[in-house]
Amino acid sequence: MTKDDVLKALSTVQEPDLGKDIVTLNMVRDLTVEGNYVSFTIVLTTPACPLKELLKKNCIDAVQSINKNALVTVNFTSSTTTLRSDKGSVLPNVKNIIAVVSGKGGVGKSTVAANLALALSKGGAKVGLMDADIYGPSVPIMFGVRGERPMMIEVEGKGMIVPLERFGLKLMSIGLLVDEKNAVVWRGPMASSAIRQFVTDVYWDQLDYLVIDMPPGTGDIHLTLVQTVPVTGVVVVTTPQDVALADAKKGIAMFGQAQMNVPIIGLVENMSYFTPAELPQNKYYIFGKEGGKRLAAEYDIPFLGQIPLVQSIREGGDIGIPILMSDEDITKHAFLELAGNVARSVSMSNAHMKSEEIAEVVE
Amino acid sequence: MTKDDVLKALSTVQEPDLGKDIVTLNMVRDLTVEGNYVSFTIVLTTPACPLKELLKKNCIDAVQSINKNALVTVNFTSSTTTLRSDKGSVLPNVKNIIAVVSGKGGVGKSTVAANLALALSKGGAKVGLMDADIYGPSVPIMFGVRGERPMMIEVEGKGMIVPLERFGLKLMSIGLLVDEKNAVVWRGPMASSAIRQFVTDVYWDQLDYLVIDMPPGTGDIHLTLVQTVPVTGVVVVTTPQDVALADAKKGIAMFGQAQMNVPIIGLVENMSYFTPAELPQNKYYIFGKEGGKRLAAEYDIPFLGQIPLVQSIREGGDIGIPILMSDEDITKHAFLELAGNVARSVSMSNAHMKSEEIAEVVE
Ligand SMILES: Nc1ncnc2c1ncn2[C@@H]1O[C@H](COP(=O)(O)OP(=O)(O)OP(=O)(O)O)[C@@H](O)[C@H]1O
Ligand SMILES: Nc1ncnc2c1ncn2[C@@H]1O[C@H](COP(=O)(O)OP(=O)(O)OP(=O)(O)O)[C@@H](O)[C@H]1O
Ligand SMILES: [Mg+2]
Ligand SMILES: [Mg+2]
Repeated sequence: MTKDDVLKALSTVQEPDLGKDIVTLNMVRDLTVEGNYVSFTIVLTTPACPLKELLKKNCIDAVQSINKNALVTVNFTSSTTTLRSDKGSVLPNVKNIIAVVSGKGGVGKSTVAANLALALSKGGAKVGLMDADIYGPSVPIMFGVRGERPMMIEVEGKGMIVPLERFGLKLMSIGLLVDEKNAVVWRGPMASSAIRQFVTDVYWDQLDYLVIDMPPGTGDIHLTLVQTVPVTGVVVVTTPQDVALADAKKGIAMFGQAQMNVPIIGLVENMSYFTPAELPQNKYYIFGKEGGKRLAAEYDIPFLGQIPLVQSIREGGDIGIPILMSDEDITKHAFLELAGNVARSVSMSNAHMKSEEIAEVVE
Repeated sequence: MTKDDVLKALSTVQEPDLGKDIVTLNMVRDLTVEGNYVSFTIVLTTPACPLKELLKKNCIDAVQSINKNALVTVNFTSSTTTLRSDKGSVLPNVKNIIAVVSGKGGVGKSTVAANLALALSKGGAKVGLMDADIYGPSVPIMFGVRGERPMMIEVEGKGMIVPLERFGLKLMSIGLLVDEKNAVVWRGPMASSAIRQFVTDVYWDQLDYLVIDMPPGTGDIHLTLVQTVPVTGVVVVTTPQDVALADAKKGIAMFGQAQMNVPIIGLVENMSYFTPAELPQNKYYIFGKEGGKRLAAEYDIPFLGQIPLVQSIREGGDIGIPILMSDEDITKHAFLELAGNVARSVSMSNAHMKSEEIAEVVE
């Protein structure tokens, strides 16, 4: 059994999302073959890849199909892909910027953004969470960092704000920079320039993912953000009822608009159903059934998952420890699955856009 | 028994909210006395007055205390009070303008505004509902009038938009005037001028109450609205959890600010608890317990009521028939009580402000 034999065998293993084999995708590294001992590393396009186990099994099967006594060690590493080759001056070391949006307010953007960021980080990625909700920042309460004052450092002669760190995440909220006692009435242009400054003055350093918790609605803040930050894509959050779906559609339309033109990573349905502890078999579809799922199908965008309505999710938000850091399994699982789907969708979109880019160059 | 005897007896009856007797308040009209037959009309300060039965009983008791054989007929009428004596050019025939606000989005502003307007109207008042949520108008879906095009009339040489009518309410939504298929990205100044035009170009005619469903948050739209419309007061809606309360506080602070200075009519707690039909004795405080009630106490503002989390409220919103028009008794009752409290609070505030005005003149 030579290295070439093994590579040939591995070239039958498909990366299901990217639709090509793992050898062509250059995902196999550090291959060693010594007698029956085979070892190699697979470089995933994201540490949060939900396909690890499947890939591992398929790789072992492929090698054993040419040598049934082979003892195969599959290591994983990841190098999160990015489309930001030039990267420019804004957030130069951030690979992927994911904006969590909704048309309607209160549907759970902040909850999803926080737990998504934590779940991506649990998967091994370097993750930041930026709370850009200038009108109602939630991160200070949700992470129990209200009143903390971020430090400043000098980077290339410029004073920069250092994000806080909590549960392995880097965090910054506009609520940590303005005094929360006084309601701020930002007039349009003031709000836009505040957001712009907020984005450019925080020193995020190296990140695989920066998750942005956006303000609700479809206003000029969104336009400013998209014009300031090179957003990789948006995750749309909605609850299942018609009035929320109507606003979600507006959000989708807005981000698809020529002025913005930001890809949709997918849609999350939040508060999908309520299950009382005493009646675990009952699901109460208080806000309606599967409205988000239907919307995703209708608009042909990836459906990223359903999150149930669970008191401990709300409590986690209120006490400053997001549900993902608790040991409440079922809901945590929903968010981990969501993160896997988001990471996949981003990888796929990066791969897809890259091949489009290449195709354009080739033609 | 003379008229004077009766008036003297009635002058022992207090209007509990206004803290004075009904004769001093000039609430007794059309008094006739013929033998044992006494009849008079009480002019309430609002048709939605929840104290009718109490007042009636106290009046009868008072008259019978001077003549135990008296046969007393108490009629009610109402003349909704207003502070808008000059009234100016904006909404000249509208007596009270109630803005329904929240800091946080999705807490049920539109649901409360719609059902509050309907409940006030059931009480006999002339009521309009204006949906000023430029980013996510809900009234078209909530009243099943999506796609309807309002008519225009000429009033004093100016083309004005005629509100729709539904369930006895006058309705207008910014969503009926802009095409809902395309997401509108309003830049600040554009949004402000659109709102201003929207307010001044609709012909509401005579109203006791105009309820305004405001956009979420504390932004420049709010400032514009308050600078354009002479708002009588705001009803703050919140859900019980801390993150919503934090935003509600911001809302309260904003409206109290010098720039705005709008009285707070009171606070409504929405989605207070969920009760499954199978376990009617259980209340699930999914979003936390009595947070709104505590906030009202802490800020010393009137607490207007609790609205439970009920699937039929959401369904009512989605199918275009608000819960108040259904025959679902318990939740309807919660809204009727809310409307009574709002009307009371407005009357009291009007009376209070009037006596302050008079006091100032007297000094
Ligand atoms: N799945 C869920 N189960 C229970 N509570 C939830 C769930 N998702 C969100 N919540 C709670 O609902 C409230 C609204 O959620 P959140 O603040 O995340 O919404 P949002 O869309 O960010 O709101 P805004 O538009 O104000 O930014 C919070 O109290 C949150 O804890
Ligand atoms: N008490 C309740 N029980 C069940 N559902 C409710 C209740 N109150 C509101 N809802 C539902 O919750 C959703 C949000 O309510 P609503 O649209 O009234 O909020 P809002 O504050 O006006 O939101 P926005 O900030 O987007 O304007 C709607 O689907 C509505 O039907
Ligand atoms: Mg939020
Ligand atoms: Mg609304």
